[in-house]
Amino acid sequence: MDEILEDSYILVYRDRRRRWLVRPKDTPKLHTHLGILDVASLVGKGFGVRVATTMGDELTILRPTIEDMVMKLARRTQVIYPKDLGLMAVKLGVHSGSRVIETGTGSGATTALMAYLVQPGGTVCTYDINPEFQAVARKNIERLGLSSYVTFKAGDSRLGFEERGFDAGILDVGDPWEVVHSMKEALKPSAPMAAVTPTTNQAERLVAKMKEEGFVAIETVEILLRHLEARVGMTRPSNIMVGHTAYLTFGRAAEPPVST
Amino acid sequence: MDEILEDSYILVYRDRRRRWLVRPKDTPKLHTHLGILDVASLVGKGFGVRVATTMGDELTILRPTIEDMVMKLARRTQVIYPKDLGLMAVKLGVHSGSRVIETGTGSGATTALMAYLVQPGGTVCTYDINPEFQAVARKNIERLGLSSYVTFKAGDSRLGFEERGFDAGILDVGDPWEVVHSMKEALKPSAPMAAVTPTTNQAERLVAKMKEEGFVAIETVEILLRHLEARVGMTRPSNIMVGHTAYLTFGRAAEPPVST
Amino acid sequence: MDEILEDSYILVYRDRRRRWLVRPKDTPKLHTHLGILDVASLVGKGFGVRVATTMGDELTILRPTIEDMVMKLARRTQVIYPKDLGLMAVKLGVHSGSRVIETGTGSGATTALMAYLVQPGGTVCTYDINPEFQAVARKNIERLGLSSYVTFKAGDSRLGFEERGFDAGILDVGDPWEVVHSMKEALKPSAPMAAVTPTTNQAERLVAKMKEEGFVAIETVEILLRHLEARVGMTRPSNIMVGHTAYLTFGRAAEPPVST
Amino acid sequence: MDEILEDSYILVYRDRRRRWLVRPKDTPKLHTHLGILDVASLVGKGFGVRVATTMGDELTILRPTIEDMVMKLARRTQVIYPKDLGLMAVKLGVHSGSRVIETGTGSGATTALMAYLVQPGGTVCTYDINPEFQAVARKNIERLGLSSYVTFKAGDSRLGFEERGFDAGILDVGDPWEVVHSMKEALKPSAPMAAVTPTTNQAERLVAKMKEEGFVAIETVEILLRHLEARVGMTRPSNIMVGHTAYLTFGRAAEPPVST
Repeated sequence: MDEILEDSYILVYRDRRRRWLVRPKDTPKLHTHLGILDVASLVGKGFGVRVATTMGDELTILRPTIEDMVMKLARRTQVIYPKDLGLMAVKLGVHSGSRVIETGTGSGATTALMAYLVQPGGTVCTYDINPEFQAVARKNIERLGLSSYVTFKAGDSRLGFEERGFDAGILDVGDPWEVVHSMKEALKPSAPMAAVTPTTNQAERLVAKMKEEGFVAIETVEILLRHLEARVGMTRPSNIMVGHTAYLTFGRAAEPPVST
Repeated sequence: MDEILEDSYILVYRDRRRRWLVRPKDTPKLHTHLGILDVASLVGKGFGVRVATTMGDELTILRPTIEDMVMKLARRTQVIYPKDLGLMAVKLGVHSGSRVIETGTGSGATTALMAYLVQPGGTVCTYDINPEFQAVARKNIERLGLSSYVTFKAGDSRLGFEERGFDAGILDVGDPWEVVHSMKEALKPSAPMAAVTPTTNQAERLVAKMKEEGFVAIETVEILLRHLEARVGMTRPSNIMVGHTAYLTFGRAAEPPVST
Repeated sequence: MDEILEDSYILVYRDRRRRWLVRPKDTPKLHTHLGILDVASLVGKGFGVRVATTMGDELTILRPTIEDMVMKLARRTQVIYPKDLGLMAVKLGVHSGSRVIETGTGSGATTALMAYLVQPGGTVCTYDINPEFQAVARKNIERLGLSSYVTFKAGDSRLGFEERGFDAGILDVGDPWEVVHSMKEALKPSAPMAAVTPTTNQAERLVAKMKEEGFVAIETVEILLRHLEARVGMTRPSNIMVGHTAYLTFGRAAEPPVST
Repeated sequence: MDEILEDSYILVYRDRRRRWLVRPKDTPKLHTHLGILDVASLVGKGFGVRVATTMGDELTILRPTIEDMVMKLARRTQVIYPKDLGLMAVKLGVHSGSRVIETGTGSGATTALMAYLVQPGGTVCTYDINPEFQAVARKNIERLGLSSYVTFKAGDSRLGFEERGFDAGILDVGDPWEVVHSMKEALKPSAPMAAVTPTTNQAERLVAKMKEEGFVAIETVEILLRHLEARVGMTRPSNIMVGHTAYLTFGRAAEPPVST
């Protein structure tokens, strides 16, 4: 069981910077700067094996995780990072059976992770105003075998979502304050939402609008992730580091306050 | 549907610092510093409503998320934070149906989140050398209604796990290097593991041992989370911040290298 | 030489949290929670000695540095931190003989450090719209013996500084954009300025105004300082950490651009 | 006054990434990717002017600050950053008249800043075991016109410094614990020292040795500096960021403790 098939995605791992996501049927030979790997010959083997290129360079064959898949997908447009996706998943409580509403679809990276988490009984309904973007995302989701958990909708979420009763909501658009009202209507009472915004100005306008619409437990955070180079006797943080990805704003849909 | 029952957990939310997790049957009256809330009277109502204490203080009634539940559980022993749990979940690819192995159980906070994610078809098998700790964790998991997805084992994981074929592994013990070999044997080839260690020295020893045992894609990271106080015209990062929780080390089980 | 006198300030050091700044003539006996220290008896001794309280608690007698003095002064109003002051000093190039213009004086903490650096040939000219604030700052500067290097001016710097030809400028007011023009006029061409603003909105307005007035090499930064608990075999970052003090904006006075 | 001379260093500023440090006599024509600047023609003009290349690209002529000079010098060997230098200067209390002891000299960047601060009455005595390194540093210090405030000594500081009675000490060597005893002897009682170490292991060994030698007020910190891109309506932290430079350890020379 768990053996490599013609159409299995496999992660060929060399080091932190060099890793390839391929399928034997698409890429029977993988050309690296240190020789050629006979990918086709891996069919029938198990994951976790060490193999060598024609030049003797050692590589490891891994079964790609959802992170491996999503990070490769994300390359095309703006990137959303595992550090951010992870916190969103926990704070939104997304799991098997959850019904999630998202706008916009973007590269489909967030959509993909959420679809992965809601299967088999849940669903992700994702809106994007740009049908071309969605075409790319749809193809990405298909590659991951997650299409049956995703509903793609081309449309302007500022005008409202057609569906109701979602367990969690995700806003990843440039003007999220314009969609807060629609989101409130689409969510179950008390359900959590998360929004992704690169700038402080967006976070500021978004939070003001969320308060107005009756959201509570509103908080905006940013996550800094730093690598530690853990080596015997010479451990130190990594010199290079991503300085910023996005602010994440969370809140819970509630009735507007009686007072004020 | 979704109405509050006698034995529903409800989150009574006031502000970021003051929130209470109660059940009508245990706490018919909730005493706050600003009056008393008639919790019993909420039975039959829906989540997301605004209510007032006897002194007129406004509170919001929320359905607790897994984060709300886990953070309340975690109070007793060492704390593991949503920021860390989220990244672990994504990097381990834990979802419905996953089989996860964990040592040690601790307060059961990590166990609880993983059980929440693997349901309904998966399982979390959690070891702890201290049966008393496990008794507390077991009670916590029961409160969350997640007991059927967790197997508790009292035992010394340094001597090996009895089970095999796990999709993901979690190490949260003081001497994780002593368990790396056991973990390797318990994981499916290519499966990811994550370890939680407060000190740089632990990370250093752990990483050395993981390399020795053939793990690849090893990386150690730390996550800093900072709140942004997003207020119109006066947005600024929060003055207070948690400086450190733990280093997270990730890796993938693979055959030991041929060379070297 | 370097012996303790009746009116010497001495730093009685116990640990990172407990340190006292006293003078024998003001505080002949220092009462701590672990006994009484006979401060008067230290007169004639040297700095760096270890002494004991009446209860046998060991303390160290240190000559206060400028940081010790400034951090004690800063307590009263808003705090500016050594991490921020240090970067400002380097980027402004303040040293012996520099002529520095500052607004507002505040607690005098920044004024004090700058005065310390410009002595003996330089001067710090500091404006504050609030004469009462300046009275406190003046007393602080006197205690430090730095009065001869500071000129206090009560006045509204938005209306202009009376002096010209400064080597460096410091803005620490709530509406720094209103003073950028005055600052430009008071600085020598090409001279650097620094501004301290807690919010992103202030930084945003300030930078826009600085560009308009012809400043170049404009940059806004924030500094996070974290302690490392370095202990043999159990080294880890400190759990507690200051999340934010202020954004620091730097720039250089230049002719307005010809183009645009 | 303050006019540009044949042998004045001038900073030709284009943007954050492109700035050149030149002298008219060495570089009469500066070739940039956007045309040629006639540097020779600047002689007699003042700093702060805007000029154009032959292709019409606008540049600003600035008088270099000590930071500009030091950062250009630092390029050759390991880099020490203004954020770190600034905190060191404040915590060491270095100012006009201070006597500073340093080992090793390295590129001379730290030496240069300290010499800049101690002038005119103070001195920096700097040791390096490698005379070739010192030759580079000496040339750098000469360029800055700071030679008369620096004494270069080629020698192994682990064996002791020849001088005594310093106000502040700086350790920037690979094995600082080997020099702590020498440093203690060279410093005035109660004087502060600072050490720069890239790894946690070095900080750990250093702190242990400092405690043994009777240093007090020991603390190890790291500084993270992040740029804020402050632009009207779209303010956000910079995506790129230096993740780590060095840990800074501070302490004060005192008598060894009586107890223990």
